[in-house]
Amino acid sequence: MAFNHKHLIDITEYSADDIMTVLETAVRFKEVNERRIKQVPTLKGVTVVNMFNEPSTRTRSSFEIAEKRLSANSLNFGGSSTSTVKGESLVDTVETLCAYKIDMIIVRDKHAGVPRKIADVSGAHVIDAGDGKHQHPTQALLDLYSIWEVKGDLAGLKVGVVGDIGHSRVCGSLIPALKIMGCEVTVIAPPTLLPARPDVLGADHVTTKLDEALPELDVVYMLRIQRERLEGAPYPSLREYNMLYGLTKEREPLMKPDALICHPGPINRGVELDSYMADHPKRSVILDQVYAGILTRMAEMYLLLGGSEDGLTA
Amino acid sequence: MAFNHKHLIDITEYSADDIMTVLETAVRFKEVNERRIKQVPTLKGVTVVNMFNEPSTRTRSSFEIAEKRLSANSLNFGGSSTSTVKGESLVDTVETLCAYKIDMIIVRDKHAGVPRKIADVSGAHVIDAGDGKHQHPTQALLDLYSIWEVKGDLAGLKVGVVGDIGHSRVCGSLIPALKIMGCEVTVIAPPTLLPARPDVLGADHVTTKLDEALPELDVVYMLRIQRERLEGAPYPSLREYNMLYGLTKEREPLMKPDALICHPGPINRGVELDSYMADHPKRSVILDQVYAGILTRMAEMYLLLGGSEDGLTA
Amino acid sequence: MAFNHKHLIDITEYSADDIMTVLETAVRFKEVNERRIKQVPTLKGVTVVNMFNEPSTRTRSSFEIAEKRLSANSLNFGGSSTSTVKGESLVDTVETLCAYKIDMIIVRDKHAGVPRKIADVSGAHVIDAGDGKHQHPTQALLDLYSIWEVKGDLAGLKVGVVGDIGHSRVCGSLIPALKIMGCEVTVIAPPTLLPARPDVLGADHVTTKLDEALPELDVVYMLRIQRERLEGAPYPSLREYNMLYGLTKEREPLMKPDALICHPGPINRGVELDSYMADHPKRSVILDQVYAGILTRMAEMYLLLGGSEDGLTA
Repeated sequence: MAFNHKHLIDITEYSADDIMTVLETAVRFKEVNERRIKQVPTLKGVTVVNMFNEPSTRTRSSFEIAEKRLSANSLNFGGSSTSTVKGESLVDTVETLCAYKIDMIIVRDKHAGVPRKIADVSGAHVIDAGDGKHQHPTQALLDLYSIWEVKGDLAGLKVGVVGDIGHSRVCGSLIPALKIMGCEVTVIAPPTLLPARPDVLGADHVTTKLDEALPELDVVYMLRIQRERLEGAPYPSLREYNMLYGLTKEREPLMKPDALICHPGPINRGVELDSYMADHPKRSVILDQVYAGILTRMAEMYLLLGGSEDGLTA
Repeated sequence: MAFNHKHLIDITEYSADDIMTVLETAVRFKEVNERRIKQVPTLKGVTVVNMFNEPSTRTRSSFEIAEKRLSANSLNFGGSSTSTVKGESLVDTVETLCAYKIDMIIVRDKHAGVPRKIADVSGAHVIDAGDGKHQHPTQALLDLYSIWEVKGDLAGLKVGVVGDIGHSRVCGSLIPALKIMGCEVTVIAPPTLLPARPDVLGADHVTTKLDEALPELDVVYMLRIQRERLEGAPYPSLREYNMLYGLTKEREPLMKPDALICHPGPINRGVELDSYMADHPKRSVILDQVYAGILTRMAEMYLLLGGSEDGLTA
Repeated sequence: MAFNHKHLIDITEYSADDIMTVLETAVRFKEVNERRIKQVPTLKGVTVVNMFNEPSTRTRSSFEIAEKRLSANSLNFGGSSTSTVKGESLVDTVETLCAYKIDMIIVRDKHAGVPRKIADVSGAHVIDAGDGKHQHPTQALLDLYSIWEVKGDLAGLKVGVVGDIGHSRVCGSLIPALKIMGCEVTVIAPPTLLPARPDVLGADHVTTKLDEALPELDVVYMLRIQRERLEGAPYPSLREYNMLYGLTKEREPLMKPDALICHPGPINRGVELDSYMADHPKRSVILDQVYAGILTRMAEMYLLLGGSEDGLTA
């Protein structure tokens, strides 16, 4: 399988084969780890810039660890200390970084489209680590990995995505990615949290009724609810949300025996998930998703920089 | 000597033999350094998370350098940028970190007991880098190392600990550690800075009179005085404190000829120590304590991760 | 050529031979890079402290990357989290750092003279990364490198330095460095932005008229204008500044055909430079300066730590 991408910005530019190459490369890194070799010299001498212009703990940490386990050099750049404070344009900042002869920029920004703009003006590889409400493609890849690892095959799986679809960059990559892999996607949300045009992301079904959708689903993907979003909103209140859309112990009998629970983290326990479901030993793959984040990010960085799936040796 | 600890949280769980194993391993690292080999591949591929939820310069730097000289991968995590801001529970944060397959968490927190809680829910090794007013066990180990290096034997030494005993996490580990090693400990403080029950930490003697205690002491351990603590307090004022409890040039004649001066840093010159004593070429081991911090932290991390004192080769 | 410096604090302590040794060593690092070997083990085990007591993006990033490409261990220390907050003196902080057995301190401080003071009390090598309005010697070295790389020889070049001479630490090192290398330096600025004694830095000519000076210059070095400096000043306004001292497309016919444009970055586009000039494919070496920063900093660190220009192998 040829992998011919320079960037990971829009998941819809990746084919099902491309995505499988990432997932299978991630498995190779997992196998290496299991032989207790946690650091490989694969990217020795490569410089990766972590440009997080918006606070992030999980995604940033996950990339940092992935970089270190590949022996890359990480440069943390961004936040309030950047010279954008000094009025420098984004383009000048990126050109400066590229003049350092860096190899890759991981970018998180509150504005949609920033990763694409950076890719346009830089010679470096770019990975979108979340841009506004637009995309979050490495999240989608780790989600697919976690589901694939348990289910074995993604095609034909029925996946429900529950929550604040309208404001979620996770959805922006996840739903298209699920469609690329042949899943059947149902979007489940109160009408106030649906986007204006729910068809846009390519979901197969849209419903406001979790209890009706649940019995069909192989995977239930619970989105994080921003408390700020519901506080002061006319409908639903936090309590109503939990009652109608929370995945609680009471709802488990509605689920298929082997249906999985995913969540991008961090969890708002008692809102979208209760602890019984979040920590469910058979159903919840939430912590597996965290580890999958390391593995798929290692795989993605490795492949973008020209590594071949077959060439990986530890 | 078998070293069978998973964590370093409460120094009272360590025997005199355990502590000697740490000190002797630290000497081995010092010998390696003296052959101008400052970095050893000992912990290559190991991931250590520095979770400092409270600002710290010295302790954090010391751990970071120790980790780098062992070739471990460090992840700085904590402070205001963590997702505890997003309302995630400590347990969920720790479980997320552990899902990264990290090996060790170094934790500083303003709340006593946090390191123990983290150890309870994580599979990783935990080192307490200071929790509230409770303990600071790596400080105690470096203190013991510095005294032992000069005095040769700890058993029977008379050690005075002077200052704000009531609010000091340093004391919470130091005094029990001195007792484990067979020292005779005298606590010296104004009554307002003593804990409600001065016996709790296990000191042998409690006095408010520095001048009476000084002639007996082999080691004088001066605690840092928080100016904030004394400002506005009825007694003692900063000036009174310095007059009655400051280790000044005028008091040197009261000291044994070979009595040592320790301080955990940073020094408030002119309050608990004057510069003559802080920089005393024969008595002050304050800068040796700083270097001992690197060596004993390297030793502790190495031993917790399963290294044997005998197996260390550079 | 013997290179016998312990520090880089005052560029006037370096001879033309010393500076050429740095530039030629930088070329060697560039050659290594071009063989796609971006990281060399040269400084493995060496600990470099980046003590940035003032915010900095570019200089700090450049040093960090240089350190990593030399395989040194970097410790970031400084900013608001240091224990200077706790009232510790600079001397105590530096002595503590040195007790860690660190090898080099890179220091940026808003107060002139801090790097010298640190060198006086520490056993470590010190590089001034900008102190107040005093000096910024590594900037001067990268500037010389970029000019030398194109022009081949520095002696006899006519260099104009345009802008806020009175408040610029860049000038504090650049003008003396140009003089050491045998350049003829013209300082060009509105009278309000000249220092009280424009002769102090050793420039050969001082003028307020850019258009008269421009036709003679081989290199036009544009300083960054701090908008804050001009806002509210009686003269010149930003608009007046751009009209009289901005290097704009309209002024290009006044320039020698092979005259170069330098700028220390970040650029205030539309103030001291327009985009036509900033991005001029033949004249502008601004991005080359950025890369030269990595190379010359690698060279300087390597030479200070005892490497010889001849001994460098990859």
